[in-house]
Order: sequence, then structure tokens, then C-alpha cells
Amino acid sequence: MTQPPPPQSKYIISAIEATSMAESQNLTIPQLLPSLVKSAQNLAVPSISKFPVGAVGLDSDGRIFLGANMEFHGLPLHHTIHAEQFLITNLAAHGGGPKLLYVAVSAAPCGHCRQFFQELRGISETQIVITDKDQEDHVYKPILSILPDPFGPYDLLDKETPLILEKHDNQIFLKDQNFIVQNEKTPDLSNGVYELIIKNQESLKKEAFAAARESHAPYSGCPSGVALMDSEGRVYKGSYMESAAHNPSMMPLQAALVGYMVAGGGGGYERIVAAVLVEKEGEGVLVRQEETARLLLKHISPKCDFQVLHCD
Amino acid sequence: MTQPPPPQSKYIISAIEATSMAESQNLTIPQLLPSLVKSAQNLAVPSISKFPVGAVGLDSDGRIFLGANMEFHGLPLHHTIHAEQFLITNLAAHGGGPKLLYVAVSAAPCGHCRQFFQELRGISETQIVITDKDQEDHVYKPILSILPDPFGPYDLLDKETPLILEKHDNQIFLKDQNFIVQNEKTPDLSNGVYELIIKNQESLKKEAFAAARESHAPYSGCPSGVALMDSEGRVYKGSYMESAAHNPSMMPLQAALVGYMVAGGGGGYERIVAAVLVEKEGEGVLVRQEETARLLLKHISPKCDFQVLHCD
Repeated sequence: MTQPPPPQSKYIISAIEATSMAESQNLTIPQLLPSLVKSAQNLAVPSISKFPVGAVGLDSDGRIFLGANMEFHGLPLHHTIHAEQFLITNLAAHGGGPKLLYVAVSAAPCGHCRQFFQELRGISETQIVITDKDQEDHVYKPILSILPDPFGPYDLLDKETPLILEKHDNQIFLKDQNFIVQNEKTPDLSNGVYELIIKNQESLKKEAFAAARESHAPYSGCPSGVALMDSEGRVYKGSYMESAAHNPSMMPLQAALVGYMVAGGGGGYERIVAAVLVEKEGEGVLVRQEETARLLLKHISPKCDFQVLHCD
Repeated sequence: MTQPPPPQSKYIISAIEATSMAESQNLTIPQLLPSLVKSAQNLAVPSISKFPVGAVGLDSDGRIFLGANMEFHGLPLHHTIHAEQFLITNLAAHGGGPKLLYVAVSAAPCGHCRQFFQELRGISETQIVITDKDQEDHVYKPILSILPDPFGPYDLLDKETPLILEKHDNQIFLKDQNFIVQNEKTPDLSNGVYELIIKNQESLKKEAFAAARESHAPYSGCPSGVALMDSEGRVYKGSYMESAAHNPSMMPLQAALVGYMVAGGGGGYERIVAAVLVEKEGEGVLVRQEETARLLLKHISPKCDFQVLHCD
């Protein structure tokens, strides 16, 4: 799940920059993380709870990744992206890893997030600090200590199955190669957007397919991915990521919205004018995203064009 | 959230029966619970994971409640009902409580469920045993020990706000009193089902409204409830239950499906012929269930009539 990180994203700090920030404050890099939690919280879009959560992680390559919660009012709460899930999605999408070494979060992670962390190999040893407790001395402790006796991937998979942050190459192919150009312009679509879709259709298709190929769906066998295009023709992708426990899974549209935010898309979802989902179809397919993705898109960007490409 | 428990449900064991079962095996009642986990697992409908999970709980009135996981293939995994959530819904719907004292589960509860447990007052002290570990000696430990430093209701609410298993009486009223009889028969609806809806409309409306009034929605302020009717005219209800952490919330349709299972409805969802949802409507409403409930209903019982009643 690698793509070049966007230049100067507020959500990613390079290893060089991280070192320099730590040195200027006479801190180690793990000591630096708690001081960045507030900046992460400022990136939150908690439109239901008004409770901004920030999460900051250091990977084994020395890069720092930020995450913040995103909520979508007018829909059930399961559409919510938690800060820790945002962080993991950010890591996975931008070549973070191979290990997540340290995490600082603004509030005690909920059980849902402690569970989602389990999809990273060796997560039990990852060190975590909760900054709204022990405000004075930020003492890290292993994630295992806040989720002892976890249920996790190894309860269902063999040890060789790749986990999140490890290379995935799902063996899928597209059934229909020429989907978009065959679609007619719908009344909702302006001429400009229609032309932009035609112009960028290969990129949309390619990115959505790549996102599905790189997705983490070992439990259902139903990989999926989403590509979004904004009104300037920029494309953002997101890969579906399953949890062994099912419900804390990250849907592909949510993952693509994280990609959109990290690349500077900001909260203006109505700037998203086109979306492409790649997933399997048919009776025997255990998990399908189409209708739920359509529901969320319709809420956040009512005029967004939405196409589904099926793979096998 | 009380209604008479169904007679002789496989999911509820009376205090008298529980005492008699324990005595006949020379066990205390907490010692009896692990032996019932297998029966709970046998009630699971794990159509995606094929991983049946059973959960058994003892309340402070001496009754035993069972729960099992339910999965819905063809939709995203967040529709899944975990065994522990089933157990809590069963307790809440059938007057369980006021405390949940002991829980036995077949596998390590996922973080999502450890989080959902937090919506019960005093849950940290509830004793839990995981039967697939320590198969010989079933030693209970407090739930706090498997979710230390939890994020929970008290991070967001004052201590007086009722939690799950405590009396809720949301101050809502129905906007439209005569909804069903005004609806025309749709082509999907057989004459028999249409007449059954007309006959039972007062009961459907009353139960859906009661479920919404009793629902646990302190975080969003958006109570909701669902009533289902089967092809014999029997009505089942379910109340929405929110989690402080958002995503582990129990949607009202899922809660009503638990009600349907507990009352002996079995896995034949196509026997559900009518559904009524009561919830708030309008721009400022933070959480709405309608479209997601319609999605799930369409998948499990395509011909089911679905009506939405709005409340204020």
C-alpha cells in the first residue's frame, strides 16, 4: 500500500524534519510525539461529538504520521473514522512501517481502536501514551497493557498472511475495462465535471484498482478500493482494511477520505466530484461496499458521480 | 427497556431454572455459566466468518441470558452483531439487571465488545471468563482487567445520565399518528401481508415508538427504535443503543433482530414482512438510521414493507 506521500502534508512529518524538531527542543523523538497531539486534534472533524481526538505515530523509518477523528452527521455512527484508524490508514497508504513503534493519543483509545491496532504485526509491543492522563510525565506503555488477552488476526489466520503495513497483492482483475466512457452524462453532472471525468478516467480506474489490489481483506476474501477525484482533477485513493473482529474494519470510501484529507483536500467534501469503487460482485460474495459507499457519498457530496467496477 | 420475556426462549433461563440446573450439577451459578457457552454458540448465525461465538451472562436477579453472533453477508461488516452485544441487547430488552454480574464467553472478546460493555454501570467489576482459554479451571476476572484505562460514558456524560439497563424515557412524541393506513399497497406486498399490516398497525406503531422512547442515545440526542412483524402477525421490537465511542453502537434494526431471535423467530428473515422505524428527522439531526436500516432489510427480506415514523 504505497504511494508517494503528498508534499508538505500536515499529516506526515519526514524523518529529517522529525529529528530536527526533536533536537531543537532537546527531546528524543518519542518524547516529541505528545507535543504534536494538539496539532493532530486541530485536524479533527468531529461534527457529531464535538470531541476532537488526535493520534500521532512514529514508524520504524523515523517518520511521524498524524491522525484525527472524522464524523459524518445524518448517518449511523459506524461511518465515523477514529483518530487511531486515521493514523493507521495514513501509515498504510503512505508507505509507513514496517513497524509502528510509538503512538501518542489525546484520550484513552476506545476498545474499537485497540482492536483495530491488532491488525499490525507486533502491535502488542508498540508503546503508547495517553496525553490527557499523566499530563506531566508522558510515560509510554505497551499496547498489550491496554488490551490484554487480545482477539486478533492469529485467531483466524496463519502467521504468513500479510497484515496491515505489509505488502498485499490481491490476485484480482477488472471485469470491465471501459466503464466510464460508456456512461452517459447524468443531469446532476455539469459539462465541466463530465469532461474532467472523461479526461481522468484512466487514472481513476487505475487508482481504484490499485487500492483494491493492496487492500487487507483476509477474512472475507473481498478486497475493495475507492478512488476519488476533486474538482481540479486530482485523484485520491483508499484501500479497504478488515479487522479480525469485523466491526472495526475500515471501509474503502472512508480510507479514500483519509487520503483526501492527508493530501490537503480539507473538509469541503462537495469538492469531491467523482468516485470509483472496485469490488467483487455476485451471490457468493460475502462483503459488498457499493450501497453503503453510495449512501455516505450522497450525504457528503450529493452531486458526486459514483461508478462501480467489478473485479474477479 | 422492559417487556415480558418470551415463554421458554432458548436465550433466557429463569432464576428458578438456573438454580435447579446448578444444583443438579453440584455447581454454583457462576460455575454453571461456562457449561452453557456451547449452547449459546449453537445459536450463532456466522454466515461470513463461520466462527460461532457464544456469550452467557448472569444478572443480579439470578437470571441467565444468552447471546450469539449474527452476520449478514453481502453488506459491510459493521452490520455484524457480536455475541456480547447480543447478550447486552437481550438483557436490556427483557428487564435484565440492574447489574450484569458474571459473563462467560467462548473466545476472547474483541475490543469493540469490551468497549460496548462500558455502557453498563459498574461494568469494570463484572467478572468474565473466556472458555477457550484455561479450559480446565474457569477462573473469572474483572472486565477492567481486559480493558484497563477504558474510555467510557463518564468521559462524556454526567454520572446521573441513565446507562444501558437503567430506565430510559426519552421525551419524544410522534409527529404523524396515522401513518400506515394511509399507505397504498405496493406491488411487492401480497394482499395477505397488506391486511396483516392494517390489522397490526397500532401494535407496530406502539412498539416502535416504545423502543425509541426506551433507547440509549445520550451522545447524539437521536433516539430511535424498530418494530418488526412476522408473517403470523407477531411483533418484535428493538431499541437503539449508543456507545460513548460511537462505532460499537447497536443500531435499532439490529436490536429488533435480536428481539426476533430471542422470541423464537429463527434465522428465516424472509418471514419478517413489515418493519417500522421511529426516529427524528430534519437538517440538524445528527444521526439517522433510515437508509441503513432499509439497506439491511432489503438484503435479508427483500419484500418486507418498511415505514418510517418521525418523532420530535
